[in-house]
Amino acid sequence: KCSPSSCLLKDEDTFKILIATDIHLGYLEKDAIRGQDTYNTLNEILDCAKKNKVDFILLGGDLFHENKPSRRCLHSSISMLRKYCMGDSPVTFNILSDQTVNFNTTQFPWVNYQDENLNISIPVFSIHGNHDDPTGAEGLCALDLLSASGLVNHFGHSHSVERIEISPVLMQKGSTKLALYGLGSIPDERLYRMFVNKQVTMLRPKEDQDGWFNLFAIHQNRSKHGPTNYIPEQFLDDFLDLVVWGHEHECLITPARNEQQLFYVTQPGSSVATSLSPGEATKKHIGLLKVKGRKMNMQKIPLKTVRQFFIQDVVLADYEDLFTPETPQVTKKMEDLCYAKVIEMLEEAEKERIGCPLTPEKPLVRLRVDYSGGFETFNTSRFSQKFVDRVANPKDIIHFLRKREYKDDIKDEVTIDYGKLIKPTAVGGLRVEDMVKQYFEAAEQKVQLSLLTEQGMGKAIQEYVDKDEKDAIEELITCQLEKTQRHLQARGVTTEQDIDAEARRSEHRGAVSTPFNITVFHQAMNRAKANRLERGEESVDQDMPDVDMNFADDDVVASPAPTRGRGRGGRGRGGRGRGKGECC
Amino acid sequence: KCSPSSCLLKDEDTFKILIATDIHLGYLEKDAIRGQDTYNTLNEILDCAKKNKVDFILLGGDLFHENKPSRRCLHSSISMLRKYCMGDSPVTFNILSDQTVNFNTTQFPWVNYQDENLNISIPVFSIHGNHDDPTGAEGLCALDLLSASGLVNHFGHSHSVERIEISPVLMQKGSTKLALYGLGSIPDERLYRMFVNKQVTMLRPKEDQDGWFNLFAIHQNRSKHGPTNYIPEQFLDDFLDLVVWGHEHECLITPARNEQQLFYVTQPGSSVATSLSPGEATKKHIGLLKVKGRKMNMQKIPLKTVRQFFIQDVVLADYEDLFTPETPQVTKKMEDLCYAKVIEMLEEAEKERIGCPLTPEKPLVRLRVDYSGGFETFNTSRFSQKFVDRVANPKDIIHFLRKREYKDDIKDEVTIDYGKLIKPTAVGGLRVEDMVKQYFEAAEQKVQLSLLTEQGMGKAIQEYVDKDEKDAIEELITCQLEKTQRHLQARGVTTEQDIDAEARRSEHRGAVSTPFNITVFHQAMNRAKANRLERGEESVDQDMPDVDMNFADDDVVASPAPTRGRGRGGRGRGGRGRGKGECC
Repeated sequence: KCSPSSCLLKDEDTFKILIATDIHLGYLEKDAIRGQDTYNTLNEILDCAKKNKVDFILLGGDLFHENKPSRRCLHSSISMLRKYCMGDSPVTFNILSDQTVNFNTTQFPWVNYQDENLNISIPVFSIHGNHDDPTGAEGLCALDLLSASGLVNHFGHSHSVERIEISPVLMQKGSTKLALYGLGSIPDERLYRMFVNKQVTMLRPKEDQDGWFNLFAIHQNRSKHGPTNYIPEQFLDDFLDLVVWGHEHECLITPARNEQQLFYVTQPGSSVATSLSPGEATKKHIGLLKVKGRKMNMQKIPLKTVRQFFIQDVVLADYEDLFTPETPQVTKKMEDLCYAKVIEMLEEAEKERIGCPLTPEKPLVRLRVDYSGGFETFNTSRFSQKFVDRVANPKDIIHFLRKREYKDDIKDEVTIDYGKLIKPTAVGGLRVEDMVKQYFEAAEQKVQLSLLTEQGMGKAIQEYVDKDEKDAIEELITCQLEKTQRHLQARGVTTEQDIDAEARRSEHRGAVSTPFNITVFHQAMNRAKANRLERGEESVDQDMPDVDMNFADDDVVASPAPTRGRGRGGRGRGGRGRGKGECC
Repeated sequence: KCSPSSCLLKDEDTFKILIATDIHLGYLEKDAIRGQDTYNTLNEILDCAKKNKVDFILLGGDLFHENKPSRRCLHSSISMLRKYCMGDSPVTFNILSDQTVNFNTTQFPWVNYQDENLNISIPVFSIHGNHDDPTGAEGLCALDLLSASGLVNHFGHSHSVERIEISPVLMQKGSTKLALYGLGSIPDERLYRMFVNKQVTMLRPKEDQDGWFNLFAIHQNRSKHGPTNYIPEQFLDDFLDLVVWGHEHECLITPARNEQQLFYVTQPGSSVATSLSPGEATKKHIGLLKVKGRKMNMQKIPLKTVRQFFIQDVVLADYEDLFTPETPQVTKKMEDLCYAKVIEMLEEAEKERIGCPLTPEKPLVRLRVDYSGGFETFNTSRFSQKFVDRVANPKDIIHFLRKREYKDDIKDEVTIDYGKLIKPTAVGGLRVEDMVKQYFEAAEQKVQLSLLTEQGMGKAIQEYVDKDEKDAIEELITCQLEKTQRHLQARGVTTEQDIDAEARRSEHRGAVSTPFNITVFHQAMNRAKANRLERGEESVDQDMPDVDMNFADDDVVASPAPTRGRGRGGRGRGGRGRGKGECC
């Protein structure tokens, strides 16, 4: 499918766009088995774009898994983009909009293929995701290294927190006019609030508004996680024709019509499974979008290098004819059952892999074992040992969980309380948290905090813990101290008493006077924990069951033993809650 | 001087080469006053190259100060190189050598200006320094990100530790033939040993050997630090014409003739002071080297954006007419004397700065106060306060030291014992060391170390502590464990007893059986401490005198109080020991 013969619509009026998202380059790059996966798949995607002679590539965010990608990761991405996206094939569309507005993150605010020093054959347009979003005083993200190098066109970066104005990149190819809108990832709650407060505006070309095909790339929660922790499709303008929705990892790439807004939404899904949840088990695809006039066609292209992932559920209580909790050697029997199930999946995987030389040999396998009804869990390390040579994730094949036992607790929506899910003591070495805490204690003694605004501090802590932005807090303090010093100097304040008085006066201007509001701190800490788990910084303690929030449509509670959220922290989790149905 | 009018030798047979080294981009980038310095100076250097229409730029290593430069640092370097080194001016020399040998660190093993997708006007050739040297399993350095982007030609990277063969980049412009040799930084002791063992070879073109101008870029200790901790010029082949010596920070750019080898050595020096030693106070220059046939000419170009640095020595015992240790209020009088000296330097700085709009306003100032003869040090924090608005380094202007009191201890050479200079307890929060130690203890309990080779472990620890290569140790262990597992499997070893027996047997194959040889560990620890100090991770405890190894030609000992080596660890220190004489 991914071959030149698929150029059915060879037409000088047709945009051919390769659509992909959530490539998560560098995910588990240290893993002996899976370390090469994301690199192979980016290579496949770029190769596919080249073979299909697309006009451009559109990425929906999270090209990088880490906010600060490793040297290897940066080096690989640069090398691959240079290899596939530079060359002599001419780019045949024009850009009509103000490029200094569209591409505002580098000193080179123009599209790369129009730079006379670069010979670009396939321009890449990308918004940033929540994994690779801008941080630090400069507001730069990993993507900006690629855009400074001229390899990617980073667009959709809103620099204001007050108001978002999305200016489209206006493109024309022959008679087709395409308005490309983009909005890089923003914390869902904030963006939700901004939509509600009418602070988000999508600008439109003044002339011939109906002549444009309006394409929008967004990277947010699409499924509802809490009342304002997602972006309802209804928030988006109804003049749009197609929304490319990044961040959600399940492949639902076939455009689905929103009957209320009358636009279509395509959710390409990630090109790598970053969690072992049902959404990630859906076959991975990228899209070849063709746009002619205001008509579009989306061709699904299955990815060949993606590691297979099989997931099955076993409810032990359903096997009464085989065993009950009282059966002698029940653990052995449970293990045998699980063994058979895993073998079943492996056989299925092997069958599917026939004729697919690019598919990695060892699949990902997950068996979710519901042990409610009085069963005990068994030690999975011996079980893992049996599959070391056949499974890519031998250490976490089995996932024990229990159905919610108190039916009256069931609600329509799963509300996630990270504080409950993640037991702090279960996380080894809380170094970051400890350091922040120490900092707070020290700072409090010096009454420094009375000079820091709550908002600034909250943001700095978040950057510190979420983004590994080690200087965020220091930067804030320095900046705030300087401001304060200037302020005091201007007012002729020189003695310590004067300073105290001035600080008390400043309380009225929104600075924090009492010991720092600890809520912000706790929120950040919880997020940090969840994030570290997600980044795969999990120890190998097998016997701790983890909690899967995607378990079918049933409500699931954490087992009473210490539990851990695996890869589903407040940010960057994928493949959630879109059910198990076939999607594309 | 840095203007187009300096093109005296406009000649189609003349190579014009801009020579610079040790730019240390990103040094102190978080400093409110000095943070922009290295960025301004790289900009000046590139601008100068462009204005002088050079054929190429040759960098002698340490373009980056940090092995893992920050995002800002990478972004700035990419942006500046793209701005200055891309464009339409044609490059008029050819490369005759095998480029796949010369440029072996990327997938694009050819010189950037011959890449048909890049429009390069000024090719940059660079070796790596000790600060930005290759690390990790891939052996990539920060420079390789630039070379993958096509902005720099990284050469002189030897991938073998057994044998170094330096293949020159053979260039021809008109009738002039230039052989450019390069050797990226290698630990001095190792390279010294390899030279002694004849493991270093410089390859020469087969034909017309006398027709080539032979230029060699090297980044090593030039001055002697211990018997084998430098590279004697005599080690280098005598067919060379000019050696560009990086790493040493003092500007000694005027080529000096080595009468034994009959070649010249130019030591451009760093373009930023990374320590407050006399060598760094020498005016900073870059060079415009012209080569025609086998003749050369080096033009010194003073750098205009470099922050001024003034250093003076005061020997308190010389002021008997003013005060002695017994004088009432002697401390006040000492302070007054020091104050006057600093003011003197500031006035000199101001005078020099007239007509130099690019020079930063606040100079670096150091006053070295010899307080031997019974004086006490004074608290410098109040002293610092007086210069906050006028000096770039108010917190460390004063540097107390004492002359060696036992004359019979004087030796011809200063032998440096880092263990003595750096008192571990003086270094706050030995986190890295603690972690490594913990690791060792834990590992020892599990008898894992009996499976690790000493060499591998030594190298891994070094990368861990020196390069912030967090995964080095883990990588080694994983690799070694896998090897061991394969080995055991192959031999059919399955029980624990068998494994123990096998491990004992393997002692004969060079693995470490006894608890790990602690020497390697201690060496790495000492280096780590020195490095951290060097990186500017110094706390602001003023009252701890530091030891300056460059103090004139006198021997100096550490004062008995806790002492600290400032910025002169085993690696990457600059500006040492070339005396105080005018150099260029």
